[in-house]
Amino acid sequence: MKRVRLVVAYDGTHYHGWQIQPGRVTIESELNEKLTMLLGEPIQVIGASRTDSGVHARGNVAVFDTEHRMPADKICLALNQRLPEDIRVQSSEEVAADWHPRKHRCIKTYEYKIMNRRIEMPTQRFYSHFCYFHLDLDQMCRAADILTGEHDFKSFCSVHTQVTDTVRTIYSLDIRRDEEDMITIRVTGNGFLYNMVRIIAGTLIAVGMGQIRPGEMEQILEARERRRAGPTAPARGLTLIEMKYVD
Amino acid sequence: MKRVRLVVAYDGTHYHGWQIQPGRVTIESELNEKLTMLLGEPIQVIGASRTDSGVHARGNVAVFDTEHRMPADKICLALNQRLPEDIRVQSSEEVAADWHPRKHRCIKTYEYKIMNRRIEMPTQRFYSHFCYFHLDLDQMCRAADILTGEHDFKSFCSVHTQVTDTVRTIYSLDIRRDEEDMITIRVTGNGFLYNMVRIIAGTLIAVGMGQIRPGEMEQILEARERRRAGPTAPARGLTLIEMKYVD
Repeated sequence: MKRVRLVVAYDGTHYHGWQIQPGRVTIESELNEKLTMLLGEPIQVIGASRTDSGVHARGNVAVFDTEHRMPADKICLALNQRLPEDIRVQSSEEVAADWHPRKHRCIKTYEYKIMNRRIEMPTQRFYSHFCYFHLDLDQMCRAADILTGEHDFKSFCSVHTQVTDTVRTIYSLDIRRDEEDMITIRVTGNGFLYNMVRIIAGTLIAVGMGQIRPGEMEQILEARERRRAGPTAPARGLTLIEMKYVD
Repeated sequence: MKRVRLVVAYDGTHYHGWQIQPGRVTIESELNEKLTMLLGEPIQVIGASRTDSGVHARGNVAVFDTEHRMPADKICLALNQRLPEDIRVQSSEEVAADWHPRKHRCIKTYEYKIMNRRIEMPTQRFYSHFCYFHLDLDQMCRAADILTGEHDFKSFCSVHTQVTDTVRTIYSLDIRRDEEDMITIRVTGNGFLYNMVRIIAGTLIAVGMGQIRPGEMEQILEARERRRAGPTAPARGLTLIEMKYVD
């Protein structure tokens, strides 16, 4: 028996998120089905981040146990031949039998992309949220600076959650605009609450539009009430970039 | 009667190219159909660049004539409401009645993208060509330097063409690799022969793989024979970025 860790990239457009749901095609169900076919034994992966419907990933992480003698590093290529083209396992390696993707310290990086143009650019429509109103990047950066650091992010957490400890640390929250009017919000932290990145993105968009002043971030954090922050930005703009295990 | 110029962006993945073909959905057929519906008279656009099946555009150009009283600059938004989400007209403006998109001096810019990784990244699969072998960028840049300038590009032109004058000028041919292993070849010139950018890309890939030496570019140009250059790189990596009319 060995435990194998996968780094998984996917285009989430056509999936009902990561987690298995009856009658729905999910990233987890695809991985389980194709690994079971490949290894000839029932496989169930454990995912690090259960991304929502429509969210993308460059580096989500999953593990599974197998009795098969195939070397762990070979599983990746053999599995990719069976997976649909919108899922590609980037690497596979053996890890300790007790290694669990949600039980070790991990630094996560997400990107949220906003296509900030008067008219949409079709080649980027699946991987960004289109925003017609011109966003003021300076104001957004000011708000981002206030959110950086250790805070209670309860106001930036979906009410549909049972988590009680809502303190998290954002190590960096950078915003840049490229020459094609794509705004990228890149956020790195020690963990994120349910929908936290999309609520931060939605709040920063509201700041960029002038609906919320950057200074209000402090009151929003203090309030610890979801309704005080901005709306949840759409899933298609979000990509899980990397999970870096620090132990 | 007025003549209206459109700047057209599209994701070419699901189209049989620009040009009308019986029984096929093309960019031109979509524009004609939706403009005819919008303006209530039969409209036929004239395109600047008849891009191939699967090729993308950020800034192709087309014109058409209409009797309709709708202001030219308003047509763009009304038309986008009728077009599928993979075509978006970026602007519409009135031009002189004799202005023709293929009969004026124009500087064209294309980008060819190569995803140069061991394993594909699904979120970029529609807009880049996947290449498993590590490409040597220095060698590619040396070859690109030799191709820059005024040359007879007959060796870089598909044999399926009737063009007799095959001399063109490449103003710049830049190659860069980003932190996510995407190589972008950006080429600007006064005109391009049929498949010329894709043959240049295919030849530069062969150089990057060590199959062709950069110095051989000179002999390939001199030979004026299609078979001397590298293969035609796949359509999905190519995007028409801009057409800049200089008169």
